[in-house]
This record gives sequence, C-alpha cells and structure tokens, in this order.
Amino acid sequence: MTTTTAGRSAVSSDLYLRVQHFYAHQMQHLDSGRFEEYAATFTEDGEFQHSPGAGPARTRAGIVRELVEFHKRFEDDPVQRRHWFNHIALELQEDGTVSSTAYALVVSVRPGGKPDIAPSCVVHDTIVDGPEGIRLKSRRVTHDQHFQPPFS
Amino acid sequence: MTTTTAGRSAVSSDLYLRVQHFYAHQMQHLDSGRFEEYAATFTEDGEFQHSPGAGPARTRAGIVRELVEFHKRFEDDPVQRRHWFNHIALELQEDGTVSSTAYALVVSVRPGGKPDIAPSCVVHDTIVDGPEGIRLKSRRVTHDQHFQPPFS
Amino acid sequence: MTTTTAGRSAVSSDLYLRVQHFYAHQMQHLDSGRFEEYAATFTEDGEFQHSPGAGPARTRAGIVRELVEFHKRFEDDPVQRRHWFNHIALELQEDGTVSSTAYALVVSVRPGGKPDIAPSCVVHDTIVDGPEGIRLKSRRVTHDQHFQPPFS
Repeated sequence: MTTTTAGRSAVSSDLYLRVQHFYAHQMQHLDSGRFEEYAATFTEDGEFQHSPGAGPARTRAGIVRELVEFHKRFEDDPVQRRHWFNHIALELQEDGTVSSTAYALVVSVRPGGKPDIAPSCVVHDTIVDGPEGIRLKSRRVTHDQHFQPPFS
Repeated sequence: MTTTTAGRSAVSSDLYLRVQHFYAHQMQHLDSGRFEEYAATFTEDGEFQHSPGAGPARTRAGIVRELVEFHKRFEDDPVQRRHWFNHIALELQEDGTVSSTAYALVVSVRPGGKPDIAPSCVVHDTIVDGPEGIRLKSRRVTHDQHFQPPFS
Repeated sequence: MTTTTAGRSAVSSDLYLRVQHFYAHQMQHLDSGRFEEYAATFTEDGEFQHSPGAGPARTRAGIVRELVEFHKRFEDDPVQRRHWFNHIALELQEDGTVSSTAYALVVSVRPGGKPDIAPSCVVHDTIVDGPEGIRLKSRRVTHDQHFQPPFS
C-alpha cells in the first residue's frame, strides 16, 4: 500500500495519513498557544525557521523561546490566528527521512471583524518516523510575498 | 494501524480517512441545499448548533427545519456558499465516541463577484461509528469573531 | 476497508488517500509551472476544461499547449498562484471509473502584496486507477461566479 507519482519515491499511504493527522494536532497546538506541545512535535535537536531572513530556532527549548518572543507582538492584540494547510506532498529521501511540502495560509480574526487571510506560505518539513511517532527534524517556511519574480 | 500524538488516545487511520470522506460528502450536501441528506449524517437524536447564542436543533427532522428556516435569508440572494474544513483532529473518548475538532471557513460567492470568506469557525463534533457508518451525535460550531480575548 | 455514505457506491479508503496525494503533487506541479508533469497526470487522451465557455484541451500535448497559452497573461505579472482543494468526494461509477468532486480556490500573490483569493470553483474529475497509477480521464472546472441563480 504505497502512494506513488511518476518519478517519485513512494511513501506508504498510512504514513501520509498519519502526517495529516499529526499536522492537525500540531497546528491546533500552535494556534491555541500551546507552545510546549508544538515544540514537542520536533525532534530534540529540531530546527524551526518561520520567517525569511531570521535564523532558525534550535532545540525544543529554543523553539518555545522563539514562539514566546514572536507572540509578544500579539500581547495587546486580541487576535485568533489559524494556520491552514493544503496539498501536503511527501517524498521519501535517500537518508530515510521524508520531505513534506505543503501550502499554508494564515487566517487572523479579531473580535467583530472579518478574517484576514495572509500571508501565503509554503511549509518545507523534514520528517522522521521513529519509535515515538512522527517528529519534525526541521521546518522552514517560505513566504510567497517575498519570492523573486523570474524577470526582476 | 493507529494514529497517535503524545498524550492522546489513538484512533485508527482508517477511521480518520473515513471521517474526512464523510465530511466531504456531508458539506457538499449542505452547500447544495440537500438538507435531508445533511440531516441524515446525524444520529436520529442528533444535535446541531451552528450559531452561538441559539439553542441546538434536535433530531433529523428538527435539523431540516432549522436549515430551511436559516436559509430563508438567502431566498432573494443568489449566493453560493461553500464550507471549507481544515486540520481535522480526532480523539477517542472514554465512552467510545470520537471527538473531532476542525477549522472551518465559509466561502460565499455571488454572480460576477469575488469570494467573501467569513466567518472563521471551529467545528466540534461528537462522532459515532456504528453499523450504518459514521454519524454525528452532535455538532457545535464556535465563531472566532465572538471569542473572548484573554485580557478583556 | 471501504468508504461509504448512505446511497453511494463505495471506494476504498486507500484509493481516497492516494487521490489526495495525487492532487497534492499534481497541483504543486501546476503552480510551479511544470506543465509537462501536470499533463502527465492525465491519460494520454485526457481532456482538461479549466474555463467555462472554452472547449476542453485534449491529449497531454494539447494540455501543455493550452497551459502555455493561458499563462502568457502572466508573462509580465510576477504572480505566484496556488490552487487549494477541499472536500474531495469520490464516487465509483458503473464503468469502473471514479468521479471526484472537489472545492477549489485560487490564491494569487504578488511581491509585497496580500493574497487575492478568487475564483471559487468546483473541480469535476473522472479518475482511472490503472497500472501506471491514478490518472485523470477528464477534468472540468465550474466557476461559482458564473452559476445561474435559481430565480434568474
């Protein structure tokens, strides 16, 4: 039971489904401010780079610190943020890890307001599926607003 | 073949997939105005609360009545609504039911217009997986625009 | 292991998952301008109709030509487009093919700008699952902005 597309390495359907479910729980943790739980979805030495130009946070403790720091901007801003994912595409790597590439949109809502939907991103994860289950070895987020158009 | 995250009860991957497919058919029923089919996705004594402040509709017949009533506001409004879901997270409950928490956005389109995307919601379902397949024992929808910010 | 809803033909859970993954790779091909790879997701005699009023493109070569032609409008427009899908609903047809109906939104982002989310569409695919894996026999895209309201 494998999932294939022409010219790509196969990952099992079961792993694909577990990655989907992993993301669902993981991003609900993040959007609910459960930073410890979010950090625990990374390997102990995991790397998380959510913004271009900034270096990655490293280790679970470092990821929690980065999230606490980043969210200070929302301290006086009653915003509910929700990170949506779409088109999760997995590929088995030669070293046994799995690369995951997914679309992401950030939905931000303030009391009485309408959802603000920005930015549009692509999430690039390196996934390991070990004894404790799925964990991220690294996550790098690229932002569509910052891409270099071919003719510039 | 189970889906786990740290500290949570496991549900089978197969159930997770069937819930996704169930939602796809269910919400296409709703958005196409097939209210009988939508109501049939609930248990006979199912409860559906789609708006904060209003009590839940009860039983399949009651859910159909509620939907007919609610949609009267669109009678002279040629709108196509589409309910999008994301990050469906399941957890097995002690009583054997499964709780489902999913993000939702309502997309509304009128002829010649651009999609209006609001509100942002969270769907809280209690799912039973019985002889007739997946059914909702209850659905409660919370709205992000109405949440109480922590500092207010 | 089948996925059923009342009154509908069953497709296997495994096929449902493979279709999801197929779409993820397929649409990342399209949004990255890999038109040959996108065309290769169709059968050799596949049909692709992406806009109402225009006839369908036929054969893989014809689909590539159509995409090259369509994207000329973006030649001087540094836009990153991303096609999001939701609520993929499959039904087994009597002839052994599988019909797929899914919601779609097109997200367009320009440097420094915010995502523009339009149009809202429904994708109608006829899927064959043959020796080379999943392929589209046909894709027809309907646009919500062009629908005929019941009272007009």
